[in-house]
Amino acid sequence: MNFLIIGGDAAGMSAASRAKRNQPDLDVTVLEKTADVSYSACGMPYNIADPDRSIEDLVVRRAEVFRQKQGIDLLTGIEATSIDPAAKSVNTRDADSQARTFRYDNLLIATGAAPITPAIPGIDLPGVMVLKSLAHGRAIKQFIDQWAVRKTVIIGMGYIALEMCEALRERSIAVDMVKPRETFLPWMEERLAEQVKAEAESKGVGVHPGHAVEKIEKSNGRLAVVCPTLTLEADLVLVAIGVTPASDLAVAAGLQTSVDGAIAVDAHQRTSNKDIYAAGDCADAFHVVTGQRTWIPLALRANRAGWAVADNVCGIDRRLAGVVGSAVFKVFDLQVARTGLNEAEARDAGLEPAAVVIKSRSRAHAHPGASDIWVYMVGDRGSGRLLGVQMVGRDGVAHRLHAPAVALHGHMTVEQFSQMDLAYAPPFGPTWDPMLTAANQLLKKL
Amino acid sequence: MNFLIIGGDAAGMSAASRAKRNQPDLDVTVLEKTADVSYSACGMPYNIADPDRSIEDLVVRRAEVFRQKQGIDLLTGIEATSIDPAAKSVNTRDADSQARTFRYDNLLIATGAAPITPAIPGIDLPGVMVLKSLAHGRAIKQFIDQWAVRKTVIIGMGYIALEMCEALRERSIAVDMVKPRETFLPWMEERLAEQVKAEAESKGVGVHPGHAVEKIEKSNGRLAVVCPTLTLEADLVLVAIGVTPASDLAVAAGLQTSVDGAIAVDAHQRTSNKDIYAAGDCADAFHVVTGQRTWIPLALRANRAGWAVADNVCGIDRRLAGVVGSAVFKVFDLQVARTGLNEAEARDAGLEPAAVVIKSRSRAHAHPGASDIWVYMVGDRGSGRLLGVQMVGRDGVAHRLHAPAVALHGHMTVEQFSQMDLAYAPPFGPTWDPMLTAANQLLKKL
Repeated sequence: MNFLIIGGDAAGMSAASRAKRNQPDLDVTVLEKTADVSYSACGMPYNIADPDRSIEDLVVRRAEVFRQKQGIDLLTGIEATSIDPAAKSVNTRDADSQARTFRYDNLLIATGAAPITPAIPGIDLPGVMVLKSLAHGRAIKQFIDQWAVRKTVIIGMGYIALEMCEALRERSIAVDMVKPRETFLPWMEERLAEQVKAEAESKGVGVHPGHAVEKIEKSNGRLAVVCPTLTLEADLVLVAIGVTPASDLAVAAGLQTSVDGAIAVDAHQRTSNKDIYAAGDCADAFHVVTGQRTWIPLALRANRAGWAVADNVCGIDRRLAGVVGSAVFKVFDLQVARTGLNEAEARDAGLEPAAVVIKSRSRAHAHPGASDIWVYMVGDRGSGRLLGVQMVGRDGVAHRLHAPAVALHGHMTVEQFSQMDLAYAPPFGPTWDPMLTAANQLLKKL
Repeated sequence: MNFLIIGGDAAGMSAASRAKRNQPDLDVTVLEKTADVSYSACGMPYNIADPDRSIEDLVVRRAEVFRQKQGIDLLTGIEATSIDPAAKSVNTRDADSQARTFRYDNLLIATGAAPITPAIPGIDLPGVMVLKSLAHGRAIKQFIDQWAVRKTVIIGMGYIALEMCEALRERSIAVDMVKPRETFLPWMEERLAEQVKAEAESKGVGVHPGHAVEKIEKSNGRLAVVCPTLTLEADLVLVAIGVTPASDLAVAAGLQTSVDGAIAVDAHQRTSNKDIYAAGDCADAFHVVTGQRTWIPLALRANRAGWAVADNVCGIDRRLAGVVGSAVFKVFDLQVARTGLNEAEARDAGLEPAAVVIKSRSRAHAHPGASDIWVYMVGDRGSGRLLGVQMVGRDGVAHRLHAPAVALHGHMTVEQFSQMDLAYAPPFGPTWDPMLTAANQLLKKL
């Protein structure tokens, strides 16, 4: 039997490795259009922050290891151009435009997501860059060194934009952020979002929401990002306005897609064609809280879904639970985390949300070194269920968030969550953990 | 109506405050035998660590505030000597041995726990001390200053003993720990316990398990802790071998007790007498994992149970969920946490445990500043249920533990836990959180 995989990043290589572990005599072929496989994409901002580290440090496992130690037929520099589900084959071309066709018994589409670039004049100028693949990271790092970049404009204010702020400031490079929408982090509760904005500004980042970029121009050997009432100069412009599922191949092959154009999959990661799976940033997932399809491209899910596909291909029945939308990122010294729904998302899902925002402390009464922790908690008036949590703080936020994520998976009510026996010691929080305080407050509103 | 409370610490004062908030016209009387109410007992080691901080910093709310702002009849220096359930009254005496009787409609016993002291010669010598009440903390701090203590022996190796190691080393005071049993932390998985022991030793603590203390003697103006094959000199000897529920009053009044002599209560915190409640370190609780009664005296439960009693007394039906045995403490730079059962506890509860120990990292591949995280995870072969987790590490352990605690409350299986959508970013963990890696490994054994 033959298992063919399009895409050699998190989902694709996880699937390939696990399939060979499950069934060493399985023919596993991976088609990767770039030269890079299996690297820590999420680590790129932190690597860029350090001029002394090579971007190649982010490679988790080299292609040779997959080939020689694991027996995976890993082909780099080969791009899939179309899938023929009737013939059960994939057409490809290589760097020299040589065509080649691969047959499959089971196919995994793990093509990931592609950065969105706005269709504005100057988007193709040298020095206007995106950050998605290792090649992008390599290019950014090289560009910074080669042109001794001192000033950057980031278009977009999502988590990659914010992580890149920190990375660039770490190298003493000036940063301005700009985006059309007035709201800084629209998915985040306002008072929490204010903390994040204040943190970025306190580290010297210029935050300019409400400015749509019209064009990027060359200007005195530099670049100029031009908005109607604002022009920002830069040596480097980073476009970080989001990603879109790389589902073109799947669409052309007639596979069903869903939210944001992601490839629709079932709990086995199977697409609308029974011999074709999809996993990673190109595939959708079920949201545990809404019960609806959602598209949240994140690394853990990609790895997990890759494993699940490998198991199912090898005849081990593996159904994945849904996602709850957990995410965390670091903005300088601030940890920013979310899981589940905010009020707007809850209303969109037909729920009746009530919410609270509380400010508590990271350590016990009178314990030195405490800092603020902000908690936003959303519950459903109808069922009493916990719907979502957002948190911002300098200490203990990232890992605290795991608890409400588990509670969401368990369909717990706010009242049940308020009764959790959470561990307490003075260096790690108040007796009533900030999340319990939020739950106690929210209970009064449900 | 009248609500009488014996004990003015966490459970007692939580109950008193909440009862007055619930029902401002309720007569609430608190009898506290010491002069101190409402202080952060768990903060004492950290306060003792700092010679420049007053122990009084740990007072959360002063007696005057309870009396004047909250209208609670708070009587300090009055010790309850007996309860007469038939007459619904409590007999007391004050510092001058004056007797007084208080009647009640509802009574709360919140007498806490008492430190255990071994019956050995020399236990009453000056400089042999325990740490439970604020008065103890005050006495220890005073003693250290007055006698310029340079060397301490701690009898016992539980979490208070370990926290005090850190506090004393912080003040450059030498510390030796001694106890009869050979095993350092008997409830903890061996490899994890080794990390804790190594941490204490690396900070200059002498760890001497397997030595039963026979006596404490005066020796050249110092104290000597004498074991059969070991004698340790000290300026101060701290006895920290554990606590026992202060349930004498309850026993004498004919109330039922359970594990370790704790007062048996139902989900409403009601004792075997319908007008008498118990809460805090003197009361038992149901263990969510075993379904059996247990006694785990900790601060969060005391506060929560105090609230529940206040609600029930005021006619608001409040049933508490059980406990899962979550605890965390800091040993120098190490965070040590547990929730649920270890294998021995699982077998005692009639379960069939399987367990794994894994070592993972606190940050992602190639992310700077990573340290080890050890995870011990126990599941049940029969049901597949998650039974318990222990963790040790320098970073992110204390708050990570909240997640398995919630999973235990939700009666999740290891397989369900392995599918949790936990937030990931490189500064905060590997893509697969150490707990997920442990769950993935454990699944293979179930």
